[in-house]
Amino acid sequence: MPLVNDTTAPRIALVGATGVVGTTLIQLIEERGFRYRAIDLVASARSAGREVSVEGRDHRVHDLDGFDFSRTDVAFFSAGGSVSTTWVPKAVAQGALVIDNTSAFRMDPATPLVVPQVNAHELEQRPASGIIANPNCSTIPLVRLLRAVEDRWGIRQAVVSTYQAASGAGYSGIDELREGVRTVLEDPDSPGVSKTFSPSLAFDVIPSIDRRLDDGFTFEEQKMLQESRKILGLPHLDITATCVRVPVVNSHSEAAWIECDAPVDRDELVRALAALDEVTVHDREELGAFPTPRTAGDPNRVHVGRIRVTRTNPRAFWLWAVADNVRIGAALNALQIAEALVERGVL
Amino acid sequence: MPLVNDTTAPRIALVGATGVVGTTLIQLIEERGFRYRAIDLVASARSAGREVSVEGRDHRVHDLDGFDFSRTDVAFFSAGGSVSTTWVPKAVAQGALVIDNTSAFRMDPATPLVVPQVNAHELEQRPASGIIANPNCSTIPLVRLLRAVEDRWGIRQAVVSTYQAASGAGYSGIDELREGVRTVLEDPDSPGVSKTFSPSLAFDVIPSIDRRLDDGFTFEEQKMLQESRKILGLPHLDITATCVRVPVVNSHSEAAWIECDAPVDRDELVRALAALDEVTVHDREELGAFPTPRTAGDPNRVHVGRIRVTRTNPRAFWLWAVADNVRIGAALNALQIAEALVERGVL
Ligand SMILES: NC(=O)c1ccc[n+]([C@@H]2O[C@H](COP(=O)([O-])OP(=O)(O)OC[C@H]3O[C@@H](n4cnc5c(N)ncnc54)[C@H](OP(=O)(O)O)[C@@H]3O)[C@@H](O)[C@H]2O)c1
Ligand SMILES: NC(=O)c1ccc[n+]([C@@H]2O[C@H](COP(=O)([O-])OP(=O)(O)OC[C@H]3O[C@@H](n4cnc5c(N)ncnc54)[C@H](OP(=O)(O)O)[C@@H]3O)[C@@H](O)[C@H]2O)c1
Repeated sequence: MPLVNDTTAPRIALVGATGVVGTTLIQLIEERGFRYRAIDLVASARSAGREVSVEGRDHRVHDLDGFDFSRTDVAFFSAGGSVSTTWVPKAVAQGALVIDNTSAFRMDPATPLVVPQVNAHELEQRPASGIIANPNCSTIPLVRLLRAVEDRWGIRQAVVSTYQAASGAGYSGIDELREGVRTVLEDPDSPGVSKTFSPSLAFDVIPSIDRRLDDGFTFEEQKMLQESRKILGLPHLDITATCVRVPVVNSHSEAAWIECDAPVDRDELVRALAALDEVTVHDREELGAFPTPRTAGDPNRVHVGRIRVTRTNPRAFWLWAVADNVRIGAALNALQIAEALVERGVL
Repeated sequence: MPLVNDTTAPRIALVGATGVVGTTLIQLIEERGFRYRAIDLVASARSAGREVSVEGRDHRVHDLDGFDFSRTDVAFFSAGGSVSTTWVPKAVAQGALVIDNTSAFRMDPATPLVVPQVNAHELEQRPASGIIANPNCSTIPLVRLLRAVEDRWGIRQAVVSTYQAASGAGYSGIDELREGVRTVLEDPDSPGVSKTFSPSLAFDVIPSIDRRLDDGFTFEEQKMLQESRKILGLPHLDITATCVRVPVVNSHSEAAWIECDAPVDRDELVRALAALDEVTVHDREELGAFPTPRTAGDPNRVHVGRIRVTRTNPRAFWLWAVADNVRIGAALNALQIAEALVERGVL
């Protein structure tokens, strides 16, 4: 029974508890039997006062404005970058360790950026900043695969195109996709609905996620390079990406072309990836034997398929990865960070 | 007035006249005022006898089975690869010149594979085989852009991920996407509708188009390599692709990363691409200034955006291209081949 009367179990707070990531974090706490001594659900004034059930017990949602973190051991922040920028330092100052799902502190040198399957060793002690950052949702599955490739073949460069789901923009993204699709089904010439996404995502693909930077790349594309370098501890790693939103409700996909230092044997590569923790390789011979967002299966695993070495360059190969962006890309990774901290006695 | 009483204008036949490509070919003949002396619409027994209007005149659809091409100067085939394999040789034997939209003859050495903006010079005389092949719908926009890049900077390699629309699979693809989306909107757990696509394309992306080859690539991916080499006359060109179907009704998109022999100046690249015939570069500074399938604009142009040179490698750049697969990728290219043949006096 995860809510325990045990002073060694942490007191937790979920900021953004009513959002897609927060709601999934609650589900995962239930599914995985994460042990906690007390739980506080926190959101904006919009949701404050609502009752949310965790393991059959009702909890009243607190307003972040005025919330006191001095009785919180670990706070999960999933309420957007600007909320984290303002509130994470206050929570830390009040004594909480923060696991932050936003991009606010990811590149801060005093803050470890952690994917437990890759760099759990950075969780041996409480970080100097009091914050552990959770990487971007497209970066997490990629680095989990790249680690194995780097160790065996060395990565010269990776070229990645993403196929990112609406849920990456939270509940408003999911709702807008559904509503837009309904509108365009009725009137094919309708521009659709466009508030969260621009233009509407209904029956369209949008090659632009997050803000545009001076060099023409988007912030989302830059995150994939910078965060991968930091997580893997490879400051010169060469990854370049195009990040594209597609009309899928949930789960991001990526087509990654990876050129190595050494020739890659396909069978060995398949075995190396299949041996990774919580990774499923879809490699049956028939056409159809590849993961897709809706059919991949277990949402707590990274799904890989279409592994193929190019004929023109035996050092290069393609893979296709599908991962639940809300679980693998956010809530599950955050909870696995907490589990690793508990295991190491840091929490 | 395109239907002309002029013995120099060709007598044309459209095989597959009732399909997505055939219907669009009729529209383009009307829009562009293509001059012909007689027109025959041909399809299967399913549509034979139907009346189809061309420029306000009703034409009865003929059954391909038993159709006589001896009074046809040029026959456009858009009825699938197996129909072309059987019927194109018969049409040629009966004296017609064939412009074939399928993959049946594209790699035949006696058959030119033509994108008029790239290799119209191959249309100076009637080909030995009596056939001119129209390339794959993802290949056409790409080679139109690559020609300029090769000539100025030299292409070392290109890595391309596609975002291909349902219309690439004809009317049944479009209908199935719409029906599947409607089904999944009502019941999010429904597997959707899956006959043309597998699994259903509704709210999903499918990293597999056309049949799988022994090396793990699909035929669609191989076409992009082999056809580009043939059209550009660059037998060692290194292009590798992942071809993905996305829940878009019409217009394919491609994210292409291109590494050159020489460093690329972005402004010069933008100018070079913008100077190409029937290409629009979307390059305004604001976020949102990129083409998407539903918003790109003029369907008779290739739309390019997100042009950016990578920081880590100044010889490499990305671009995002959107092109109407039915027009640019099939019907318009085929008609432009015919126009070029007329201009050169071959037809
Ligand atoms: N979705 C993903 O795949 C994903 C992946 C990685 C990281 N993230 C990050 O996780 C965060 C949340 O994403 P989401 O998808 O869960 O978004 P969401 O569904 O829109 O939920 C947002 C949550 O933040 C709360 N919130 C918003 N403004 C607030 C404020 N001023 N003060 C307190 N709480 C506030 C909302 O509470 P109310 O109910 O009161 O509005 C809600 O609980 C974002 O920073 C996002 O970048 C998301
Ligand atoms: N859609 C694209 O983006 C695209 C791009 C490049 C190339 N192509 C190629 O163009 C061809 C047609 O594609 P589409 O998208 O127009 O398909 P579609 O909408 O399914 O239309 C198929 C057409 O072929 C006819 N047809 C089918 N089987 C036939 C047979 N046994 N004998 C005579 N006619 C037959 C159909 O006639 P009925 O009405 O009698 O069934 C219909 O006119 C395909 O080979 C495709 O590979 C398509």
